[in-house]
Amino acid sequence: MVNRKFTELIIRVPGQEYPVYIGEHLLLNSELLVRHVKSEQVLIVTNDTVAPYYLEFLQQAYQNKQCDVVVLNDGEMHKNQESLFAIYDALIHKRHHRDTTLVALGGGVVGDITGFAAATFQRGVAFIQIPTTLLAQVDASIGGKTAINHPQGKNMIGSFHQPQAVIMDTHALTTLPKREFAAGLAEVIKYGLLAGDIFFQQLRVELTDTLIHEQEKLVELMTHCCEIKARLVELDERETGARALLNLGHTFAHALEACTHYQRWLHGEAVAIGLYCAALLSHQKGYLNASTLAELDKLLAQINLPRRIPHDIDLKEVYELMFNDKKIIKHTLRFVLIRAVGDCYLDESVTKDQVQQVLLMAQDDA
Amino acid sequence: MVNRKFTELIIRVPGQEYPVYIGEHLLLNSELLVRHVKSEQVLIVTNDTVAPYYLEFLQQAYQNKQCDVVVLNDGEMHKNQESLFAIYDALIHKRHHRDTTLVALGGGVVGDITGFAAATFQRGVAFIQIPTTLLAQVDASIGGKTAINHPQGKNMIGSFHQPQAVIMDTHALTTLPKREFAAGLAEVIKYGLLAGDIFFQQLRVELTDTLIHEQEKLVELMTHCCEIKARLVELDERETGARALLNLGHTFAHALEACTHYQRWLHGEAVAIGLYCAALLSHQKGYLNASTLAELDKLLAQINLPRRIPHDIDLKEVYELMFNDKKIIKHTLRFVLIRAVGDCYLDESVTKDQVQQVLLMAQDDA
Repeated sequence: MVNRKFTELIIRVPGQEYPVYIGEHLLLNSELLVRHVKSEQVLIVTNDTVAPYYLEFLQQAYQNKQCDVVVLNDGEMHKNQESLFAIYDALIHKRHHRDTTLVALGGGVVGDITGFAAATFQRGVAFIQIPTTLLAQVDASIGGKTAINHPQGKNMIGSFHQPQAVIMDTHALTTLPKREFAAGLAEVIKYGLLAGDIFFQQLRVELTDTLIHEQEKLVELMTHCCEIKARLVELDERETGARALLNLGHTFAHALEACTHYQRWLHGEAVAIGLYCAALLSHQKGYLNASTLAELDKLLAQINLPRRIPHDIDLKEVYELMFNDKKIIKHTLRFVLIRAVGDCYLDESVTKDQVQQVLLMAQDDA
Repeated sequence: MVNRKFTELIIRVPGQEYPVYIGEHLLLNSELLVRHVKSEQVLIVTNDTVAPYYLEFLQQAYQNKQCDVVVLNDGEMHKNQESLFAIYDALIHKRHHRDTTLVALGGGVVGDITGFAAATFQRGVAFIQIPTTLLAQVDASIGGKTAINHPQGKNMIGSFHQPQAVIMDTHALTTLPKREFAAGLAEVIKYGLLAGDIFFQQLRVELTDTLIHEQEKLVELMTHCCEIKARLVELDERETGARALLNLGHTFAHALEACTHYQRWLHGEAVAIGLYCAALLSHQKGYLNASTLAELDKLLAQINLPRRIPHDIDLKEVYELMFNDKKIIKHTLRFVLIRAVGDCYLDESVTKDQVQQVLLMAQDDA
């Protein structure tokens, strides 16, 4: 028997609102999959890892439409110009019109590229997010940030383009490799740091290896994360203020990803190191107490996430890349720092020395 | 003595308004050139034809800022992926931040690519249009449409992104080759067809070879065109209705450009043929009388614009490409047709046979 119950959140941004559906086996719910496709044409974008598991469910749901498919190579290093233009080429060769719908089936990479293709094909067409990784479900698929990477910087090319709907099947997480699941939990821990002590303490209990099989707990946890994100997106769609808090740990993470050519870590793994660095920086600046820093370190370790910068990484390069980051305004890096769990804020007073010192302290000894 | 007088129009779209300045010698007006640059960084994008004439004026105006330059190859065939990524590369290598300003100095190609780069670099930065061709001044620089071409279709990849300001120096037109000037007049004639009989009759008198040197007349003419465009953009920024009238002649023109790989005609020349085809189609459908069709033909001929499809063009290919056009909704081509001068409308009743017949009739005999 298939459980058709699901949670529905509504995201409201200027000029648009859209639903986020969270539940088990939503990929088997054809009615839900077609509900937000107003067009006769659909282009599904997915990758070679996800396609064998779930593509056929979508093809079945869209069997009465012109349904085309682009299968990208899996991985952050493919979130680039080539993948983007492969989507444009398919849209044009299959004669998709301005009223087509793109459907992103996969993780954050597929969602971000597909969203950007939808934002820019014929100056903007509709798209739907069907995230299949934990990271995409709790973070990337909500809020309309779309992008590709530039070799010198993460998400350097992109735009804001909200989906028509986000459909999260928590059962899809059961086919996720452990490493991917853990990487997604890094973003969940980020929400814990943003949201406050009760949620953070809950995570200390619930983040375990078996969580992936506890569907009810998962739905509850993810709904909580999505609510936090939705609230910040609604407050500040274009990230001129509050939404920037979601970048906690990401200034470090993006530089680490770029200097390893997006090949060494999953995004969530880089975020885990980034969260530790941000906490360390907050501690060094005298804001965060040592015990919370240690608690975060322990929580990340509990689910086998990396927290330290490996000794073979050139810190000078990381440092240089941080100053390519999008969050720079008038030559000043803006960091999200942590005063305490549930009390994060934007800080523009971090000096270059302090950044260098934290990078050194966060590096593993050779 | 430099005349500092200029006309100022304000364009109002949801959430934004910006000025359009029209006048002689505005490129010598440093105060105006910096007025809308709020950033410490500027990237000027221009091409190898325009740079030798006007680049130094801008560099002088921005001498107290970090001012970088990208010089693209001139021509519609360079309105592509490579030029776009050359701009991103420069922005990243010169470490431009989210608060940078891009300045487009050139014709419609430079303006469209620069606008698209500004729309998508770091999810959107500011830009200013300084159009130097007649076509860009009366048409492309206003309204926030940005794009690059795909090999199979004109402006297939793009977005809506309004500039901070548009600065039109009518004196720049004096360095424009005659062919470029005439191509721009094709768009002026389009406005004549849209606007009504008085303006259209005025064009019959004023569109001559010497117009390029009559600055006062030029400013007046251009202000009129910009007002028409501004009104339609304000009514309908995202082209869901009224703004589509500006595409008069463009469904034919885009297909003609694509099938000649953007190398045979200037955009305005293709528009001239497109206007004739649209008028012929309107006549064939029984809407437009024969004398107005002849009048239009004569007006285009008066300034040496092409009106017929050369005999070596494969009409089947043109026809196929028309069905790649952005204006297709649910497999129906939407044409802007002409009932009379000043009375254009969107028509969805054109049959494939009628299109084929008009293409045949508009083709030159071998």
